[in-house]
Amino acid sequence: MKVLILPGDGIGPEIVAQAKKVLEVLKKDGLDLELQEAPLGGAAYDQYGSPYPEFTQNLARAADAILLGAVGGPQYDKLDRPLRPERGLLAIRKDLNLFANLRPAILYPELANASTLKPEVVSGLDILIVRELTGDIYFGQPRGIRTNEAGEREGFNTMLYAESEIRRIGHVAFQAAQKRGKKLCSVDKANVLETTEFWKEIMTDLAKEYPDVELSHMLVDNAAMQLVKAPKQFDVVVTGNIFGDILSDEASMLTGSIGMLPSASLDVNNKGLYEPSHGSAPDIAGKDVANPLATILSVAMMLRYTFNNEAAAQRVENAVKKVLADGLRTADIYEEGTTKVSCSAMGAAVVAAM
Amino acid sequence: MKVLILPGDGIGPEIVAQAKKVLEVLKKDGLDLELQEAPLGGAAYDQYGSPYPEFTQNLARAADAILLGAVGGPQYDKLDRPLRPERGLLAIRKDLNLFANLRPAILYPELANASTLKPEVVSGLDILIVRELTGDIYFGQPRGIRTNEAGEREGFNTMLYAESEIRRIGHVAFQAAQKRGKKLCSVDKANVLETTEFWKEIMTDLAKEYPDVELSHMLVDNAAMQLVKAPKQFDVVVTGNIFGDILSDEASMLTGSIGMLPSASLDVNNKGLYEPSHGSAPDIAGKDVANPLATILSVAMMLRYTFNNEAAAQRVENAVKKVLADGLRTADIYEEGTTKVSCSAMGAAVVAAM
Ligand SMILES: CC(C)[C@H](C(=O)O)[C@@H](O)C(=O)O
Ligand SMILES: CC(C)[C@H](C(=O)O)[C@@H](O)C(=O)O
Repeated sequence: MKVLILPGDGIGPEIVAQAKKVLEVLKKDGLDLELQEAPLGGAAYDQYGSPYPEFTQNLARAADAILLGAVGGPQYDKLDRPLRPERGLLAIRKDLNLFANLRPAILYPELANASTLKPEVVSGLDILIVRELTGDIYFGQPRGIRTNEAGEREGFNTMLYAESEIRRIGHVAFQAAQKRGKKLCSVDKANVLETTEFWKEIMTDLAKEYPDVELSHMLVDNAAMQLVKAPKQFDVVVTGNIFGDILSDEASMLTGSIGMLPSASLDVNNKGLYEPSHGSAPDIAGKDVANPLATILSVAMMLRYTFNNEAAAQRVENAVKKVLADGLRTADIYEEGTTKVSCSAMGAAVVAAM
Repeated sequence: MKVLILPGDGIGPEIVAQAKKVLEVLKKDGLDLELQEAPLGGAAYDQYGSPYPEFTQNLARAADAILLGAVGGPQYDKLDRPLRPERGLLAIRKDLNLFANLRPAILYPELANASTLKPEVVSGLDILIVRELTGDIYFGQPRGIRTNEAGEREGFNTMLYAESEIRRIGHVAFQAAQKRGKKLCSVDKANVLETTEFWKEIMTDLAKEYPDVELSHMLVDNAAMQLVKAPKQFDVVVTGNIFGDILSDEASMLTGSIGMLPSASLDVNNKGLYEPSHGSAPDIAGKDVANPLATILSVAMMLRYTFNNEAAAQRVENAVKKVLADGLRTADIYEEGTTKVSCSAMGAAVVAAM
């Protein structure tokens, strides 16, 4: 199995280095893994003049799974739009057809205090957000900045979903719900946007194939409220690319410990790109203080979704639970009475716990 | 001064009835007010077969200010799209050019417990969200559901902002910031959407005219997170129609007492439509248990923004503060140790406190 590692920018290289240790333990213990490495984002621009260069494309297409750190940094802000780090991320998602973004928002009992919400509101929180990742206004044409007929400049973008795009993400979401609490909430703005009225229609139609899953619909503005008011009402949430971008970030912040949250972006064959939900945190890059656990837990997701190896996934997750139970904390989740450790020490502790 | 009252649907009529009492006190005490009434939304459909009928249009165009309860109810869900209650709301906004939606998210000290967030995170919260209300993907053309060249059905909408639309909402936001904490955060998704890249460019340009206001930019996904993580970092937030829809609802729910939050939608001359931030709550309609305070506080906003009568605005706001201090609470904000009152009793108490 070929795993391509994309360290990326900012804290990317240091968190990925810890996750790589985990992959190496699994390999040593018999998992058939071949590890490769390539740049993405700013690092790729620095080396090849493009955020998703051919070198990376070739390895990415050939890989079975990809582990990404994070991309982006202030030194790239002035670059032309097509050269910016996040363009590399959007390009690899689209190139590999990674349409299904799974973002769990889970509150670890040991980290309940980290949340800005009251314990009774978030304790036991376990939501899975299924975000469509290769369609919607992110990729819709036409788009741009133009001068209109009245001689005035205007910016424009196109929100767009074809039936097949909605169906395939719908199937992923219904099937995820079947394996969990059997509740699926589809989020739209059907009272205003035809695109999402159509989305709602297709989801409703799909529900017939999943009689064991309870489908509900919620408007995106209400969903943004309900996540704050009563987040535990949700099991699986499915939505489009832009609403998913907003709601998945809101949901992960409910836990107060986004440094713990992994994500997966899958194609139809469960080939996947795995990455932490947090960003590249340039302010703390290179200081060995970042939290590597979201990246390590992304490896667990890789084992589960791409390699279908539940035992290995749980081995990694249990090692993470063990270090938390032992009181080890990186700076972002530190509180009095626990032991503050560096990024590399946290990685080493997880490896030891395995 | 002509004030048009639109009771609307659900709890609309009962909350508006209490606000009307407040307007009548002001009138008796010398304010030059002429009160009229018309239906909007479902009520208008029932009476005239349209959610924004000509009868209402004529009165709305002639009015100086409009007070709306809320629109919508399950009995209208099966109607054709153009006949649904929320179409009436969108139509009146567009017809009257009410492009500037001001939505305060304020936490009343007496109601701090109502929030799902920890007291230290939200105490003293006072954010003003300035949402553009007549442009963006809400109104952009082309839009619809069509069969594409590949023979597949697809839904599509157009996000669109012309320079003049961005400038005029920008001016409103900068000027609001000048009167408050002098901090303005413009929310966009400039790393993906050209429309908002253009938005960001214009906001940055406008900032030169307001050297006393500190302008910052934030991506919408990050804004959704920061509202949960550290909401007090915000003073005034300005954003487009769809992002504003989502973020203003999220922000109001941070307080836990959306039943307290008014809103204003203004045109270039400060003619305005004023309404509570909450909805029509059909489940409790007609039971005299709804909270009329957001509607009453909407009257205060009307006095401030359209009638430029700060003294009268404060008189209403102080009366609301007084009833809260006296321990009166409708069911939505009730907690042990306070006195639960009905909608009409709350209205009467505010009138008495005036
Ligand atoms: C970096 C950006 C383009 C990206 C997105 O908007 O999809 C990020 O916010 C994410 O959610 O992965
Ligand atoms: C009812 C609906 C069309 C409306 C909107 O999306 O603008 C509402 O959510 C609001 O925020 O006033």
